[in-house]
Amino acid sequence: MPKWYEETTNDLDVVLSSRIRLARNLKNYNFSVRLDDEHAKELVGTITGCVKNLGEKSSQPFKVCHMNTMNDVEKASFVECHTITPLFAEKKQDTALLYSEDESISIMVNEEDHIQIQVFHAGMDMYHALEKADEIDDILSEAVSYAFDDKFGYLTTSPGNVGTGLKASYMVFLPALTMAGKIQRLADEVGKYGIEIRGIYGEGTKSLGYIYQISNQKTLGCSEAEIIDNLNQIVKQTIIQERKRREYLISMNGDEIEDKVYRSYGVLKYAKRLNTVDAMMLLAQLKLGIDGGLIRLKEKFDVHTLMMQIQPANLQKMLGKNITGTERDRYRAEFLNQKMADIVP
Amino acid sequence: MPKWYEETTNDLDVVLSSRIRLARNLKNYNFSVRLDDEHAKELVGTITGCVKNLGEKSSQPFKVCHMNTMNDVEKASFVECHTITPLFAEKKQDTALLYSEDESISIMVNEEDHIQIQVFHAGMDMYHALEKADEIDDILSEAVSYAFDDKFGYLTTSPGNVGTGLKASYMVFLPALTMAGKIQRLADEVGKYGIEIRGIYGEGTKSLGYIYQISNQKTLGCSEAEIIDNLNQIVKQTIIQERKRREYLISMNGDEIEDKVYRSYGVLKYAKRLNTVDAMMLLAQLKLGIDGGLIRLKEKFDVHTLMMQIQPANLQKMLGKNITGTERDRYRAEFLNQKMADIVP
Repeated sequence: MPKWYEETTNDLDVVLSSRIRLARNLKNYNFSVRLDDEHAKELVGTITGCVKNLGEKSSQPFKVCHMNTMNDVEKASFVECHTITPLFAEKKQDTALLYSEDESISIMVNEEDHIQIQVFHAGMDMYHALEKADEIDDILSEAVSYAFDDKFGYLTTSPGNVGTGLKASYMVFLPALTMAGKIQRLADEVGKYGIEIRGIYGEGTKSLGYIYQISNQKTLGCSEAEIIDNLNQIVKQTIIQERKRREYLISMNGDEIEDKVYRSYGVLKYAKRLNTVDAMMLLAQLKLGIDGGLIRLKEKFDVHTLMMQIQPANLQKMLGKNITGTERDRYRAEFLNQKMADIVP
Repeated sequence: MPKWYEETTNDLDVVLSSRIRLARNLKNYNFSVRLDDEHAKELVGTITGCVKNLGEKSSQPFKVCHMNTMNDVEKASFVECHTITPLFAEKKQDTALLYSEDESISIMVNEEDHIQIQVFHAGMDMYHALEKADEIDDILSEAVSYAFDDKFGYLTTSPGNVGTGLKASYMVFLPALTMAGKIQRLADEVGKYGIEIRGIYGEGTKSLGYIYQISNQKTLGCSEAEIIDNLNQIVKQTIIQERKRREYLISMNGDEIEDKVYRSYGVLKYAKRLNTVDAMMLLAQLKLGIDGGLIRLKEKFDVHTLMMQIQPANLQKMLGKNITGTERDRYRAEFLNQKMADIVP
């Protein structure tokens, strides 16, 4: 079955994915900071017990993963695919991950909150993601009682999530705005509307491969729809700005960018060693070229999926064994060499 | 007919070519600084009169070029192939170039001296070049009387050339010694033996594509054979040092260099714009990889010829028209893209 990120959809030149996270806690259990091991275990048992029901009602089978039975590479691979959070991967207490076959839906049990429902959708389609998340939420709420306050809404470990418990995030590709040095200004601007932009594979607003996450900071005092509408407005504006910048960039320096794109392709096709940072940058250049029509390919080619596949743990999972950083760079190059073979006519 | 530099021979991993220049002046004419236009013309007439004889005796036809009938691109193209000197290309007085079909032999009339005989040989074979130069010298000396002094030998415009009038130069490829920062030290050392090293396509000991010229500075007080033997000894030492350095480099950083070589190949194959400096460096990396067995090619591949072909004037000559620098970069890239196509299995 193809993964959710392999789905094709609209606006993929800028918006790579839409993600909903719902934070939920159970009424009859202490919150995570005070949860003892016995109750943690019990809680895992209760939620994993819903797996069959989840599979039947959402029309694709769900799997269950007990994180403490998994090795570091498997955990890191889930983090790289954004299926789980780094915090979840490091948790010592009993935890479990329930996830759908295409990995678009996942439920972390015993992350910061008792339950974190996460739904991905390729491209820009947050309402579709929300709809699915709400479905999962309904299924789980039949089996357990949520900690809910009539005034505040859903109660969560971190006060920042109290209310809807909703975090909606778009993963966006902003090469032209980055090259023009506009990201910090954009971040300051959208901050006024309770929206945050940060790099995904880097720290703060720095990013690898020009990829950023745009998400709501507020969850209290407004409805799910209001949160998403506000975020959508910002993202639509960002899409317009990014596309304008790309057009400008290509009209001013089209030849130079075309050259860079083809050089990146040449290096991806022939390099014998590629570290993650270099590979991400080269793939980003290639994506910019593909989206801008600067490089013609024989067939449709999905750079975003490659960007995930070349992350360290995913590479090792693909290879089926642990390898050193140097070996990874070599294997990453080999993998990309093969992927690039014959895609340019 | 293939050009002289397309010949294959030994030691081409380090020594690209051997060149002899013989400076000669005619007894009955003022030396160039005091030569009037009328006598310059007469002199050109006398030497070009030898063209048929030269062709017959050296078994390949000779052509005659009057430099003042040639456009700037044609002149620059001759300079890029080392067939004439930059000084000769710029001379206002009547000048002529006689050259053999494969361009291995050329005679400049009215350069700094009345006659400069120049013979190239691919790889390391200075005696072969000297033999041919002496043949040409003999043929010309039958037609004219040289300015010769029993004590000093051949008289020349520049005192530095008095004596044998011989300049022997090797064109060498020294990537490993350059990367190790050893060129200046090498230059200082060989200077003690009256030998000079300098970059060919750059200024001083700087160079493009790791290519240098090693030549004798002294021509007075020793025989032609002594000059060449001394130079050969230095060059043989240089070959040994360069090869040792390459072995060391490859044993220490083989993977890294292999990666660089393949990336260079990728960029040469796909770049849409290449200026001379970039192209020379990429080709030098490729040559290093070929010589060191780091990149396997489908067939024998001559990087040195490409290095000459991609020079600005040669490119324009090939294209048959003058183009701007930007157009040249684009055409150079196209040319190299094609040359790289399918050479790696």
